[in-house]
Amino acid sequence: MSATVDHVPGELMAAEIVQQPDVLAGLITGSEKIGEAGARIAAARPRFVLIAARGTSDNAALYAKYLAEVRMQLPAGLASPSALTVYGASPDMRDVLFVAISQSGRSPDLIDSLTVARQRGALSVAVTNAPDSPLAHAAEIAVDVRAGAERAVAATKTYTAELLAMALLFTGDRAAHVAAPLPEAAARTLALTSDERLERLAARFRSTERIVLTARGYSHSTAREAALKLMETSYLSAHAFSGADLLHGPLAMIDRSVPVIAITSPGKGGDAMRPVLELLAELDTPVLRVGTEDGLPIAAEGIVEHLLPILEIMPLQRLAWRLALDRRLDPDRPRGLSKVTQTL
Amino acid sequence: MSATVDHVPGELMAAEIVQQPDVLAGLITGSEKIGEAGARIAAARPRFVLIAARGTSDNAALYAKYLAEVRMQLPAGLASPSALTVYGASPDMRDVLFVAISQSGRSPDLIDSLTVARQRGALSVAVTNAPDSPLAHAAEIAVDVRAGAERAVAATKTYTAELLAMALLFTGDRAAHVAAPLPEAAARTLALTSDERLERLAARFRSTERIVLTARGYSHSTAREAALKLMETSYLSAHAFSGADLLHGPLAMIDRSVPVIAITSPGKGGDAMRPVLELLAELDTPVLRVGTEDGLPIAAEGIVEHLLPILEIMPLQRLAWRLALDRRLDPDRPRGLSKVTQTL
Repeated sequence: MSATVDHVPGELMAAEIVQQPDVLAGLITGSEKIGEAGARIAAARPRFVLIAARGTSDNAALYAKYLAEVRMQLPAGLASPSALTVYGASPDMRDVLFVAISQSGRSPDLIDSLTVARQRGALSVAVTNAPDSPLAHAAEIAVDVRAGAERAVAATKTYTAELLAMALLFTGDRAAHVAAPLPEAAARTLALTSDERLERLAARFRSTERIVLTARGYSHSTAREAALKLMETSYLSAHAFSGADLLHGPLAMIDRSVPVIAITSPGKGGDAMRPVLELLAELDTPVLRVGTEDGLPIAAEGIVEHLLPILEIMPLQRLAWRLALDRRLDPDRPRGLSKVTQTL
Repeated sequence: MSATVDHVPGELMAAEIVQQPDVLAGLITGSEKIGEAGARIAAARPRFVLIAARGTSDNAALYAKYLAEVRMQLPAGLASPSALTVYGASPDMRDVLFVAISQSGRSPDLIDSLTVARQRGALSVAVTNAPDSPLAHAAEIAVDVRAGAERAVAATKTYTAELLAMALLFTGDRAAHVAAPLPEAAARTLALTSDERLERLAARFRSTERIVLTARGYSHSTAREAALKLMETSYLSAHAFSGADLLHGPLAMIDRSVPVIAITSPGKGGDAMRPVLELLAELDTPVLRVGTEDGLPIAAEGIVEHLLPILEIMPLQRLAWRLALDRRLDPDRPRGLSKVTQTL
């Protein structure tokens, strides 16, 4: 790229992180089309929801799965593209809502999976940041998350835009109204953790090579996406576990040398983390909490629980960015990765 | 426990690993009941499959999800118990086959999820190693994997028994016939990696703290289960990624200091790993392959691809056991874990 000469490490990621309140505001203001798509989905009365995605978008898919289960009251699962593409499965997809989420809309396995699902009777929806992409064209319903061009390889604004798009799509008529306070809350959330605080935290994690993230419910997606950001930008060995799964095995690898980031926003998911926090306290594990004043706070007031993951990830994006710079890495261009990943 | 005084570290896990050929043989010989359960499921003509599990059993659930998609040609997903238990979702489960897999049959969140699914119209199946457990009693159909008492905290024989039980349940009339050569192949697989070879491998991994496991298709479950075993027994930071997901981000954290274990058994899943192996070779990453002569071989001859995960995990169980002993840890009793995990 021609910008190489003047490139300041992390400048793209930093710029895209701060664009998020505007991206969310734009998506809410222009949400009629998503509202229409949601109405079409409701009219089709699907009985089962399958969501397919890779990488960051797969974390948005996990979020959307909880929305489908809790808000649409439908059984839901994450699709395994390889069942369709590698093994050539061709399941009966009538009454299935099949949603593929992809920033670029160009992942061949997602295009193929969605095409098979549509041929086999599913109502097919593509959620992309690229309305002219092959995935968007392959679907009956295309949702544009309208995040603008994302140039840093580590996705930030397309992730939160995907979360909000899924919430607008899956939570009914009043979804845009419910989301109205979100852009303001996002701006406040970004300001709540000062640069100084971020630097102090980065210093605390300077010699950390392993880190565990944990959450329950909607926030499980936050834990996974934050782990991916830390892996991509700082090459940390970052594990994400649901608070419940953590107790089934992975807990053994945690000791005082492995810091834990727990997402404990107000709500049912955060409440369900209490036994996990108690156990971590017994182990004397250092825990950084997202969603509390003394940890990485978010501006949760007036925001319904299912929208909180859109805020929770923001201080963690900033932390990943800061840790990468501290390690003299460029979070805009992680080694070995490119913006569009071609998996078959 | 009274056995503490005489306990030799790892003796339980070692004994249970070598019991696997007999456990598999017993399950095949006495498979009529599972065959009947499979026939009941087929007669009910479910249209969607949901599978709920935690820990090791969740890896069996991932395996079963591929079976449902590829062999039953049904859309399938892994259930999130917390959607039902934490958020009180109550989705319409008519035409859904809901399978809960649990060694102990005593995980409260699985019992609650299965109960809600059954009340809402699902055909409910419990797959356990405890036919008298509350989970088995809560389900319409109870499948006993008959692995015998498992005393090591790190599950081994219940895992492979769960895999085989799911294959017998999901792959039709001839499933027991197709599985007939498996016990013999399991015994040969356990013998293929000598103790000496295992010691040399353990020496190679002596200073390893981070490791990545990768696979595609059915073998994805092997990668995840092996990662869990390494975390539980040796406290390694072990990540498992599908070969496709690895290319979407996590690849950045891999360099020459992070060994990769790739499951590349013969078949479509192994074939689909070729681009991943090529990329890892470019990065000069040390790769240990499962399923090849020069890596950790398995006795794959005459075994259909969908049964290979039952063999693939065996040398990896042995490796996890060996690594734990090398680190002077007791794989029978990982810190912080107990055999039955109570998650709500």
